[in-house]
Amino acid sequence: MAGNSIGQLFRLTTAGESHGVALVGILDGVPPGIELTEEDFVFDMDRRRPGSNRFTTQRQEEDKVKILSGVFEGKTTGTSLAFMVENTDQRSKDYSDIADKYRPGHADFTYDKKYGFRDYRGGGRSSARETAIRVAAGVIAKKILKEKYGTEIIGFVSQIGKIKAEYDLQNLDQNFINSNDFFTTEQKSVEEFEELLRSIKKEHDSIGAKVTIVANNVPVGLGDPVFDRIDADIAHAMMGINAVKGVEIGSGFASVEQKGSEHRDLIRNTGFQSNNAGGILGGITTSQQVVINIALKPTSSIQIPGETINRENENVEIITKGRHDPCVGIRAVPIAEAMLALVLVDHLMRDHAQNHLLPKKYHSY
Amino acid sequence: MAGNSIGQLFRLTTAGESHGVALVGILDGVPPGIELTEEDFVFDMDRRRPGSNRFTTQRQEEDKVKILSGVFEGKTTGTSLAFMVENTDQRSKDYSDIADKYRPGHADFTYDKKYGFRDYRGGGRSSARETAIRVAAGVIAKKILKEKYGTEIIGFVSQIGKIKAEYDLQNLDQNFINSNDFFTTEQKSVEEFEELLRSIKKEHDSIGAKVTIVANNVPVGLGDPVFDRIDADIAHAMMGINAVKGVEIGSGFASVEQKGSEHRDLIRNTGFQSNNAGGILGGITTSQQVVINIALKPTSSIQIPGETINRENENVEIITKGRHDPCVGIRAVPIAEAMLALVLVDHLMRDHAQNHLLPKKYHSY
Amino acid sequence: MAGNSIGQLFRLTTAGESHGVALVGILDGVPPGIELTEEDFVFDMDRRRPGSNRFTTQRQEEDKVKILSGVFEGKTTGTSLAFMVENTDQRSKDYSDIADKYRPGHADFTYDKKYGFRDYRGGGRSSARETAIRVAAGVIAKKILKEKYGTEIIGFVSQIGKIKAEYDLQNLDQNFINSNDFFTTEQKSVEEFEELLRSIKKEHDSIGAKVTIVANNVPVGLGDPVFDRIDADIAHAMMGINAVKGVEIGSGFASVEQKGSEHRDLIRNTGFQSNNAGGILGGITTSQQVVINIALKPTSSIQIPGETINRENENVEIITKGRHDPCVGIRAVPIAEAMLALVLVDHLMRDHAQNHLLPKKYHSY
Amino acid sequence: MAGNSIGQLFRLTTAGESHGVALVGILDGVPPGIELTEEDFVFDMDRRRPGSNRFTTQRQEEDKVKILSGVFEGKTTGTSLAFMVENTDQRSKDYSDIADKYRPGHADFTYDKKYGFRDYRGGGRSSARETAIRVAAGVIAKKILKEKYGTEIIGFVSQIGKIKAEYDLQNLDQNFINSNDFFTTEQKSVEEFEELLRSIKKEHDSIGAKVTIVANNVPVGLGDPVFDRIDADIAHAMMGINAVKGVEIGSGFASVEQKGSEHRDLIRNTGFQSNNAGGILGGITTSQQVVINIALKPTSSIQIPGETINRENENVEIITKGRHDPCVGIRAVPIAEAMLALVLVDHLMRDHAQNHLLPKKYHSY
Repeated sequence: MAGNSIGQLFRLTTAGESHGVALVGILDGVPPGIELTEEDFVFDMDRRRPGSNRFTTQRQEEDKVKILSGVFEGKTTGTSLAFMVENTDQRSKDYSDIADKYRPGHADFTYDKKYGFRDYRGGGRSSARETAIRVAAGVIAKKILKEKYGTEIIGFVSQIGKIKAEYDLQNLDQNFINSNDFFTTEQKSVEEFEELLRSIKKEHDSIGAKVTIVANNVPVGLGDPVFDRIDADIAHAMMGINAVKGVEIGSGFASVEQKGSEHRDLIRNTGFQSNNAGGILGGITTSQQVVINIALKPTSSIQIPGETINRENENVEIITKGRHDPCVGIRAVPIAEAMLALVLVDHLMRDHAQNHLLPKKYHSY
Repeated sequence: MAGNSIGQLFRLTTAGESHGVALVGILDGVPPGIELTEEDFVFDMDRRRPGSNRFTTQRQEEDKVKILSGVFEGKTTGTSLAFMVENTDQRSKDYSDIADKYRPGHADFTYDKKYGFRDYRGGGRSSARETAIRVAAGVIAKKILKEKYGTEIIGFVSQIGKIKAEYDLQNLDQNFINSNDFFTTEQKSVEEFEELLRSIKKEHDSIGAKVTIVANNVPVGLGDPVFDRIDADIAHAMMGINAVKGVEIGSGFASVEQKGSEHRDLIRNTGFQSNNAGGILGGITTSQQVVINIALKPTSSIQIPGETINRENENVEIITKGRHDPCVGIRAVPIAEAMLALVLVDHLMRDHAQNHLLPKKYHSY
Repeated sequence: MAGNSIGQLFRLTTAGESHGVALVGILDGVPPGIELTEEDFVFDMDRRRPGSNRFTTQRQEEDKVKILSGVFEGKTTGTSLAFMVENTDQRSKDYSDIADKYRPGHADFTYDKKYGFRDYRGGGRSSARETAIRVAAGVIAKKILKEKYGTEIIGFVSQIGKIKAEYDLQNLDQNFINSNDFFTTEQKSVEEFEELLRSIKKEHDSIGAKVTIVANNVPVGLGDPVFDRIDADIAHAMMGINAVKGVEIGSGFASVEQKGSEHRDLIRNTGFQSNNAGGILGGITTSQQVVINIALKPTSSIQIPGETINRENENVEIITKGRHDPCVGIRAVPIAEAMLALVLVDHLMRDHAQNHLLPKKYHSY
Repeated sequence: MAGNSIGQLFRLTTAGESHGVALVGILDGVPPGIELTEEDFVFDMDRRRPGSNRFTTQRQEEDKVKILSGVFEGKTTGTSLAFMVENTDQRSKDYSDIADKYRPGHADFTYDKKYGFRDYRGGGRSSARETAIRVAAGVIAKKILKEKYGTEIIGFVSQIGKIKAEYDLQNLDQNFINSNDFFTTEQKSVEEFEELLRSIKKEHDSIGAKVTIVANNVPVGLGDPVFDRIDADIAHAMMGINAVKGVEIGSGFASVEQKGSEHRDLIRNTGFQSNNAGGILGGITTSQQVVINIALKPTSSIQIPGETINRENENVEIITKGRHDPCVGIRAVPIAEAMLALVLVDHLMRDHAQNHLLPKKYHSY
C-alpha cells in the first residue's frame, strides 16, 4: 500500500492534491443504517476551512462535501462510501518561481527526489489541503462514536509559542472552544494568542503550537497487543498530520522525570485516582479519558527570504508569497479530532470482530 | 489483523508471552541471499537481556535465538524466516496474589476487561519479555541496512529523571555507549545515573527515562504520503514499545515555541544548514540524520504498596515483588533501534516497489 | 477491510453503485511518470459499455472516465490517482416491485440479510455497473505492462452454451476479437453465437459463457509463496467478477484425468515443451504464456416468471423487466483482462520490493 | 506482504520448509476462551500425514503439533497463538542430483529465477510439507465453527482420473469418508480407485483428482462486496493449495451450458429450491450449503525419466526418486477443509466487525 489508506476495518482511502480537480475519500467498513446527510459535514469542514477566521489563510474554498455513493434514503448502506470536495479556488497563478526551487521546510525536495518530479502547484499531494477529506471522514466516525457509544472527542489549542492556555480536562467548554478564533479554552489565552499572532504576522514570521485532544466515554478494551496498541495507532494517526513533530499520551515526556510511585494511577472501586496513563494501559483503553498532546511546527511558508537550492542544485534565495497561516496549529484541531475518531471506530470494530463471542457482561456496548 | 504484525512488505509477526513455552517471530519479505547465522543475534540480544547489568532485572534468560526456517547454507532464502527464543526461566512461582488483583499501571485491568480473563503469569502477552523477539528481528533489519545501504542506527539513554546526558549527535561513540551500564554517551552521566538509580532502588521506587535514536546514511525518499509518512510509521513503532508515552521527531515539542524563520532548515548545495526536521520532510526522508526521542515512563512494578482493586471490584492493596528494573528505559535502547530498523527496511522495499521504473539517477542505491 | 480494495502495492479501492451519483476509483502505488490522459480509457470502456453491441444491454451510459487527481502535466505523479465515472442514465423508474422481492440468483436476498436493508435500485453495489471502474483501473495497469514490460493481455469468449470457439493460443487475432460483437476468435463462432443468442432472446432466457484470458511476455518470477501464489491471486481476482462460478489455470479441470507423465511440461534449453501449467509453477510465473479460463453463469435477470419470496418471507412471483444481456459473459472480457492486469502489476511491484538487491542477471526487466 | 499470511482478522502466518528445523504457524485474532489442547490436532494431522495410508508417501513424520503460546489453562487467551511441527524425518540424503536440475512441473525453475538460488532439499518452501501447518490452523478454525456456530465442513475425493465417485451432498457419511484410504464417499469408488492407483503405481506414473468440499450450517451474510466476496476468497484459498489447477463454486463450469431459467435457484418461504449458486449469491453466503470443487494435477514427481535443463541451461534428463504419492489429491482433503474453515472464520469476524450494530434479528448468531 502506498500510504493513502488508514485503518484496518473502518478504512479511509484518500486522493487529491492542492490544485487538482477534487479531493476524494472512500470510507470502507461503515456500519449500515447510520443516518448521514451532506449537512452533517458543514460544522467540521468550516472549522478546518481556510479563511474561517482572521488567523488562518484567506484562500476561499467552500469545502462542500458531496456524497457520491454508499448512502441510500439518508442512511449508510454498509457498502463503500465515497465523498468528494471540489477544489473551487484554483486561481491561475504563476508558479514558475517555486516550480524549480525547493521551499525549505516543505516536501518539495523530498517529493522531487522520490518521484523524479512533482506537482509544484501549492505543494500537490503534500499540501495540507488534503486534510479536508480527513475531516470529512472524521465527521462520520464522530457521528458513530457519539450516537452509538456516547463517545465524544474534544480538541483545543493548548499552547502557541510560549503562551499556555489554562484548562481543566474534566470541564472543557466545547461551545467556547468552537466559537473563538483559536479553538482555545478561555478568554485570557484568546487575548494573548491574538496579541502574539498579530506580532508574528507583522514580522512576516510564523509560530508553533500545541494541540490537546481528549476523548470522553471511551469503551474499555480498545486496542490490540502488541503492534497495534491503540496508543501506537494514535501516535501514527497524529504524527501523520502535516506539521506534527511530537505526540504524547497522558503524562508524555513529563514521565521521564516521574517516579513509579508518582506515575502509576492507583485504582479504587470508584475508579482510577489519577490519569498519567492518559486512558491507556498496555495499549488498551481503560475507559478513562484518553488524553493526547501534539506539537505542531511553525509553517515554513513565511515571507522572510531564505536560502535554498533549485533542481539544478544551485544556491538560490526564496520567499514564499501568498496566503498562509501564521500558526498552522490552529486549523489542526478538527483534523486531530478526526484522526482520533477514525482510530477509535476502527478499534471498536476490531474488538467486536474478535471478542463478540464473550458473554455480554464484557463489552456491554 | 489483531495486532501482532508490523510492516507492509518487510513484515514481522510475533507470538509468545512471559511464561509460555517460547517467543516466536516470523519475518516475511526478507530479501534472498543475506548471510545470517545464529551468532548474529548475540550482541543485541545481550544488550536487551535482563540481568546483563546491575540496573536491569536479574531474571536469567539465555535468550538464544534459534533459526527455524528461511535460511539455507548460511543465507536467507527469500521465503519466510522463523526464529524462536525459548523461555528457559519460567520458575514455578506463586502468582495467586496478583492473579486476582490488577497491578496499577499494568495491563492487568485492560486485558481482563478485553478478553474476559488473562494469563496472569508475569503479564502474559503484555510483558516486555515479548520485545526480545523484536530485537531479534531488528538484528536482521540492521544487517540489511548496514551491509546494503551503509545505514547505521544508534540509540542511547539521553535522560533519566532530571539528569540529562551530554552528546553531539554528529559524534556519537558507539563503543562507549554499548560498554556502559546505561547505554549513555559520556562518563559523567554514567556516574550521575548510577548514583540516581542507587537512590531510587533504595526507595524501592522507579524512574522514567528518555531515549534518543538516530539513523545515519538514510537513503533519500523513504516514506509514503499521506498516512504512511515515515514519521507516522516511526511514531507508531516507537509508541508501541512498552512504557513509551511520547515520541518526538527532530525538534519535537520544542517546535511549539519556535518561529518559522528559526525552525525551517535552510538548504545550500553543500547540504541542509540545520536539522529541526529530524531528517524528514513531508513524511519522506531527506538523507539527513533521522533523529527521534522517546519518553519512557517509570515502571509500576515497585515494592511500595499501592491501592488497587481485584476482579471482584473490591478495594485491595498490592506490592509487586520480584525482579524489576528501577529504570526500564535503559533496556529500551536496543528495542527502539530494532523498531526503527524494521520501519526503514520496510520503507526501502516500498520505495523500490513503486519507483523502480525511475531512471537510475534517482535512488542510486 | 470491507472488501472494496484489491492489491497490496498497486492497490485499487472502489466505490459506487448502480444508481448512485458516480463510480469512483482510487489507485494507490502507481509508478510516477506514466503518461496518462482521459482518452486512454475510451477503448476499453467502450468494450465494456452496455449498448455497445446488439447482444448487451441497451442502457445508455457514456462511461466517460474523469481523472480527479494524481496526474500532472500528462504524467502520473506517484501519488494517489482518483478517477470517476458519473452515472448519467439514472432514469427515474418504478422499483417498487423489486424493492420488496428478492430476485432469484441475485444478491438481493444476501444484501438484505447482511445489512438489514439494501439499495434496491438496479442492485446497488452488487450491480455489475461497478465493474466499469475496474476496467478503468485496468487500462492503467495494462498501459504499464505493455509500455514497460512488453506484457500483453488478450481475452476472448471461448464458449457460449454448448458452442465452442476455435482458436490457437499462440496466434490470437486481437483485431478480429475486438471488432466482433462477441469478442470471439473466428467468424464461424461469431455466426453460431449470433444464432444461439437470437434464439435465447426469443425465449426471454439467458445463457452462460466461458471466457479465456492469456498474458504474453510475462516476466519470470512473479508470485509469492505460499498464500499469495499468483495463481491464487488470479483465482481471487477472477472469481470476484460478477457471475463467475469457476476458474482454471492451464489445463484446469482436465488435469483431473491426466497422468503425471502427460501433465508435466518438459523443459529444453529452447523452452518449455508444453503448457499444462498455464505459465505458473509453484505459484510463480515461468515466463510462458499465462492461460486462464473462467465460467460465467447465465444472468438471472430474465423475463420468464419465477418463484421467490419478499422481505416478509411470503411466497411471490417475479419477472425481471428492463434491459439485460442475454449473455453477460461477453461483457466480462474487458473486465477479466483488467483484473489480470491489476494482479500482474501488483506482483511486479512486490517482486521488485523484495528482490531488488539481486544482481541484474535476475529480473532483467 | 510476501505471501505467508492469509486472512484479514483471523490471520494465519506460516513459515517452514521441507527440510528445515520446523514448521511454524502464528494465528492472530483467535477469540479468547476457546478450549484447545494439543490432542485436538491429532485427527486432522493424521489425515494429512504422509504414510497414513497405502496410497500416500511413506515419509514418516509424527507431525505432532506443539502449542508455543496463546493458550493458558487450556483456553485461548485472545493473544497470538503459535504452534510448531518439528521436522523429524530429515534423513540425510544426497540431493546433488536435483540441486542443479529443474524438476519439470515443480517450482525448482521458478524459485531459482525469482530468488537467485533455492533450498533444493525436497522443494524447500514450495514443498507440500508446508501444508501441515495449514491443517493445524484449520483445526482451530473448524473447532470455532462447530462449537460456536454449528458449521461443519466435509471434504472428500469425488474423482480420480476418469473414475467418479457417487454421492448425495445432503447425505454424506463422514465416518465412511474418513475411514477409507481415499477419503471417498462409497465402497464402489474405494475399490475402483484402489485398482486404478495400483495400476498407476505399476507404471511409475501419477494421476489427477477432484476434491469436493461442502460446508453445512453456514450463517447467512458472510462475504464482502466487491473484491472480498467470499467466493473470491474461497477461490484464493483453494487455488493456493499445492497442485490445484481449478476451482468451482456451485455448478461451476457447468454454468457455461446452462440457461438462466435453469441456473437461477428459485426461492420459497421454505427455502431455496436448488443450489446452482453453491450457497453464495453476490459473493455473500445465503445459508445454503456451500459447495466447492477443486482440480488437482497429477504430481510431477514420477520415476519415468523426463527432459529438463540444469542451472547452466544445459539439456539433461531427470528421474524423481523417493517417496511420492501416486495421487496427491487424496491428501488434499484435510488441507482444503482447513482452508475453507479459515476463510469462514475470517468472514464471520469481518461480518461481526461491521454489522454488530444491527438489531439482533439479523445475524442471530
